[in-house]
Amino acid sequence: MQCIIITIGDELLIGQTIDTNSAWMAQQLNLKGISVTRRIAIADDKDAIVAALDEAAGKTDIVLVTGGLGPTGDDITKPALCEYFGGKMIINEAVLQHVRAIFSKTGRPVLSRNLAQAEVPDVCTVLFNRVGTAPGMWFEKDKTVIISMPGVPFEMQAIMEDEVLPRLSRRFPAPPLLHETLITVGMGESTIAETIADIERALPPELHLAYLPSPGLVKLRLSATGADQATLQYELAVYSGRIQQRLGNIVAAVRDEPMEKIILDLLRKHHLTVTFAESCTGGYLAHRLTMVPGASEVFKGSIVTYANDIKQHYLHVPEAVLNTDGAVSEATVLQMAAEVRTMFEVDISVAVSGILGPGGGTEEKPVGLVWIGLATAEQVYARKYLFRHDRIRNKELTCHAAFDLIRKELLVREQ
Amino acid sequence: MQCIIITIGDELLIGQTIDTNSAWMAQQLNLKGISVTRRIAIADDKDAIVAALDEAAGKTDIVLVTGGLGPTGDDITKPALCEYFGGKMIINEAVLQHVRAIFSKTGRPVLSRNLAQAEVPDVCTVLFNRVGTAPGMWFEKDKTVIISMPGVPFEMQAIMEDEVLPRLSRRFPAPPLLHETLITVGMGESTIAETIADIERALPPELHLAYLPSPGLVKLRLSATGADQATLQYELAVYSGRIQQRLGNIVAAVRDEPMEKIILDLLRKHHLTVTFAESCTGGYLAHRLTMVPGASEVFKGSIVTYANDIKQHYLHVPEAVLNTDGAVSEATVLQMAAEVRTMFEVDISVAVSGILGPGGGTEEKPVGLVWIGLATAEQVYARKYLFRHDRIRNKELTCHAAFDLIRKELLVREQ
Repeated sequence: MQCIIITIGDELLIGQTIDTNSAWMAQQLNLKGISVTRRIAIADDKDAIVAALDEAAGKTDIVLVTGGLGPTGDDITKPALCEYFGGKMIINEAVLQHVRAIFSKTGRPVLSRNLAQAEVPDVCTVLFNRVGTAPGMWFEKDKTVIISMPGVPFEMQAIMEDEVLPRLSRRFPAPPLLHETLITVGMGESTIAETIADIERALPPELHLAYLPSPGLVKLRLSATGADQATLQYELAVYSGRIQQRLGNIVAAVRDEPMEKIILDLLRKHHLTVTFAESCTGGYLAHRLTMVPGASEVFKGSIVTYANDIKQHYLHVPEAVLNTDGAVSEATVLQMAAEVRTMFEVDISVAVSGILGPGGGTEEKPVGLVWIGLATAEQVYARKYLFRHDRIRNKELTCHAAFDLIRKELLVREQ
Repeated sequence: MQCIIITIGDELLIGQTIDTNSAWMAQQLNLKGISVTRRIAIADDKDAIVAALDEAAGKTDIVLVTGGLGPTGDDITKPALCEYFGGKMIINEAVLQHVRAIFSKTGRPVLSRNLAQAEVPDVCTVLFNRVGTAPGMWFEKDKTVIISMPGVPFEMQAIMEDEVLPRLSRRFPAPPLLHETLITVGMGESTIAETIADIERALPPELHLAYLPSPGLVKLRLSATGADQATLQYELAVYSGRIQQRLGNIVAAVRDEPMEKIILDLLRKHHLTVTFAESCTGGYLAHRLTMVPGASEVFKGSIVTYANDIKQHYLHVPEAVLNTDGAVSEATVLQMAAEVRTMFEVDISVAVSGILGPGGGTEEKPVGLVWIGLATAEQVYARKYLFRHDRIRNKELTCHAAFDLIRKELLVREQ
């Protein structure tokens, strides 16, 4: 089963909005055995919408359309679809009641443009939007199912989960595509490819390996497509196992989860608590870890010591160290790591100090220089890194390096 | 001048990677007066690549292609392009030297698959990639310029800045599109539309208004296209001014910048310093503020007090308050805000405590309940919020609410 995703919105074409919807939809469709063959982003423009629909209708099984259903004047998807499918607009009573209920709950006045959300083409099946006012719409043409949803991510997600995915499963029962993802940290894409070249060459034709590099890590995605699911599952396990064995401890996890979830699970498993003393990362490590529900099991708090006098006052970094070694130095992060561990009474602490850029670099300490210290009850040590990118990317790389330092510390305990 | 963006990569179609490149490219092209009419994402598949090129070549001025140029076996864009444009592969000496130089600098062994990055079709102009091994390639067909770049964001950006944008400016001199963006906080999209309906209706045909809602704020983008730039600039100023006047203090800024930059600039202007005591946001406020270069001018440090005993110990929230009012309460954030202001010796402090979900909610204190306190030398006050979304979105909304509380505090000082 194949699907084309069409996203509508001027904001996507002038680069003001990053399209996160398509990735989420593709993931959900994949789990149902539906593969996305193409994603198209177009403007809030009737001709562009009609052209995109013409290219897709009759040539694929499913078309998911998002965007352009808002209550403001720049949103023209609904009339464009109504005309395209030769319908006329009618009031849907259920949607009307729902819109009124939403507004009466929040106490906001309901405007006529909000009530207009209840108008739908008479040639579609209305898909209930539990979290917003714009309903989804299900059309059919030339054996293609065409589904329109709002572009607001959580509204699209609610309609997908409540209505679209269950209906698609019933309409297109299909064997799922199987994926397995290895998260690797600390080796470049090319070197990994070289290291596992013979395993990759020996992959059976129904298996496919993709390299997905991102700041600080490379994901290896092994996917399998075919009729016999048991065979595919077996082959996936065999080849994934071979790759894991070959790559050893650079494999951080065999599931597609963010590093903070991997670290949190490891800390939980070892019944250890953690804290951070952050200078250049400015709270990013703590933010990332606390994105995971249940972070409170391993994390009680942390400190951001951006200025030197805060490092001195709360983490007792001696003025002499700050003057001679500097804030970005081994001596500083060792002291920060040791002190913050005591301050928050935890098992493991990580301290970070660096120069992320764009300013602040010197010949001796260039932009991208980062020191990361780690303290446990037994020892304190530090590693030096040199990242060569911009501020945002350097922060990301520093975060992954810090998380990987924790992972390796825990790995030693497992051996 | 019109452009189509084609992004190539299986990872884009299974939803493992979010496409941030297209947005960045579109922004850069817009500044040069080039509008993006369509973005297409396709798989690492020769037929899909050829089909997408066929649809674009001869029908638009520029096609930007990214992705599929890596050193691993799943990357097939280069041979596909070579065949499409009827070329043959040759070694480019300059690229070869550059690849060797990159590897000798890092001390990593150079593999034959890395050297193969120096092979390019003989029918293209090679675009130098200063930060990576895969060069960009400039082809021409049927009056369309087709440019291929790696998908790694910082490599694509370097090639765009060094090579593509200067060449496009020379090739397609054009009057720029003009945009002006108002950032608004605290009013829904529909209510804004209703409030400025008459101004919107009166817009001259060459001006266009778009509503871009995102968690916690709505951007209003006024754009102008046409030949006479002076007139456009004047009209943009007039209508933007009318909208600003009508919307009053919900307009946080008249430039497209993130809230943290707006807050940082305001604090700088007033020569004030800031800190945070974060419970549920777990360091996110500090992270966001320190993403802006120069944050150290207003920010010295902050504390994440995730667990109650940390709130008690470092911010002296009385045990009685935690037991009776609870950690998520007005009394708690008032105390946190007042104490953290003293702890970091700053002018303004913000304290946050809430239940972001998915767990932890009760009937009395549901998921989404957040208290935010703000302290200055003169006063301490708190606001209660109820956000009705998931953990990620609730964190985002809390962050914007906290930043807006700071903005409004500073606004009062300006009056």
